[in-house]
Amino acid sequence: MKMNDYIELVNNSIEKFMPINYPHKIFKAMKYTVTLPGKRLRPVMCLESCKIFGGNYEDALPTACAIEMLHAQTLIHDDLPCMDNDMYRRGQLTNHMVFGEAHAVLAGDALLTFAPQIILKNSKNLDSNKLIKIMEEYFQAAGAYGVIAGQVVDIESEKISQSFDKDDEQLPEILSYIHTHKTADLFKLALRTGAIIANASEKQLEIITEFGQTLGIAFQIADDILDETSTFEEMGKTMGKDKAEGKLTYTSLYGLEKSKKDLNKLISKCFNILEENHLQSDIFNEILNRINIK
Amino acid sequence: MKMNDYIELVNNSIEKFMPINYPHKIFKAMKYTVTLPGKRLRPVMCLESCKIFGGNYEDALPTACAIEMLHAQTLIHDDLPCMDNDMYRRGQLTNHMVFGEAHAVLAGDALLTFAPQIILKNSKNLDSNKLIKIMEEYFQAAGAYGVIAGQVVDIESEKISQSFDKDDEQLPEILSYIHTHKTADLFKLALRTGAIIANASEKQLEIITEFGQTLGIAFQIADDILDETSTFEEMGKTMGKDKAEGKLTYTSLYGLEKSKKDLNKLISKCFNILEENHLQSDIFNEILNRINIK
Repeated sequence: MKMNDYIELVNNSIEKFMPINYPHKIFKAMKYTVTLPGKRLRPVMCLESCKIFGGNYEDALPTACAIEMLHAQTLIHDDLPCMDNDMYRRGQLTNHMVFGEAHAVLAGDALLTFAPQIILKNSKNLDSNKLIKIMEEYFQAAGAYGVIAGQVVDIESEKISQSFDKDDEQLPEILSYIHTHKTADLFKLALRTGAIIANASEKQLEIITEFGQTLGIAFQIADDILDETSTFEEMGKTMGKDKAEGKLTYTSLYGLEKSKKDLNKLISKCFNILEENHLQSDIFNEILNRINIK
Repeated sequence: MKMNDYIELVNNSIEKFMPINYPHKIFKAMKYTVTLPGKRLRPVMCLESCKIFGGNYEDALPTACAIEMLHAQTLIHDDLPCMDNDMYRRGQLTNHMVFGEAHAVLAGDALLTFAPQIILKNSKNLDSNKLIKIMEEYFQAAGAYGVIAGQVVDIESEKISQSFDKDDEQLPEILSYIHTHKTADLFKLALRTGAIIANASEKQLEIITEFGQTLGIAFQIADDILDETSTFEEMGKTMGKDKAEGKLTYTSLYGLEKSKKDLNKLISKCFNILEENHLQSDIFNEILNRINIK
């Protein structure tokens, strides 16, 4: 499978999994953000992780799509006026700009339980023990121990960083916490569930988790660099906002040059993890090359 | 078990299931609304349903508490400024008034996946097939086919009812839809999961579902009556708001007198369901007597 084949498969499956039922406006709002044009990184990682550990990637398709829905949920709520107050996402108006704030809150809520429902309804090839494991992984990553922890500390860090002193010893730790939970946790969820579906061993799960953690941090550093150096036209969202708001980011803490250097190092580490463990994957290579900024 | 024993058991278990982990503010916000003084109707229904169908109510305790957490989630988000914009709940400030809007949104999000996580972590006596069934019931009731559908149509009905004509044929249907999903769905979730844990038969599940549906509508009619006839001191929340905002309610559609009459009828129907099916329960009797308004 090539990257575009995976993406097409994911897009078609999302279409199939998300009919517009009654009450129509809520299902439309849910689908709106899930189907915005995107790179589908997380579902592709899930499918590829299943494949490299010897599984049938089709068995991972409902889980892969559910993780994209969870990702969309985080975007909808992060964009709300009371959070990041963003008007554009992937070049389109954000959810609350189209459907109103109340429906955007409820669409996010609905996706949080719709996503695992899709897994249970459509994973007939997986036994109930495996499904329970996937549910556990999903709840851990989606909740207050996962992506929400990252978002909470991110919001709270805005206050810290307004008066922030670059020598503050706590800042690197806080930043690493935010990036781990806000970004790497969903990468790890995608990779780990794909591996679990393929019956990967504990050792293999450890390896793919370390890969996901490293890739997640790299991805977030790249995102922070692009926030400073790109335009709206290139990225489809308002850029330079983090800096303007004095947010704690990798570039605000370490500067552009060191950020690029550390990004390169983390990408190299990802390649090494794959090589050392004989995990050959054109897909993972392609993702790593896309994220890297020379 | 008496009502107060159940309530104490539920309160103690919630205390045990909800430690204040890092990031502290989000766990505090989650716990704040869950532990507001309340009647614990839904968890008590879950435990009692398990008991009357021959199960061990202790096996249902994590599920019962999870349903109270889900209920709290709906309250937190319904109270938000972009929804019902309520400042008080159970006599205390609402979640966003204490923790801010961003944290209130995230606390609700977190509860949606924390609740089923509590079930999976603490239900060691239940096999994985039963756990999957409980997850399916939970997702169905919590999401866009359940309580969120009710909230969405409730919000949308405000516009309809501003210019509403009492002879409009659609209104009774819309109102019944709102009450079924916004209220009865969580009652049915509590009763059905309790019954499932007790290995109830399909026929028994049907009976308890009909009981929950009838009780849920009765409860909502009583709530609509009290919204018109009670004070803040009696109810712990701002009253008369629905009427002031021209919301579609049972009393606005049918008037106080017919509302009370219909409430009495539904309560009688609930007693009949229990009697016809030889389901003796002092707890259910007590709940029915409490809801009734003569």
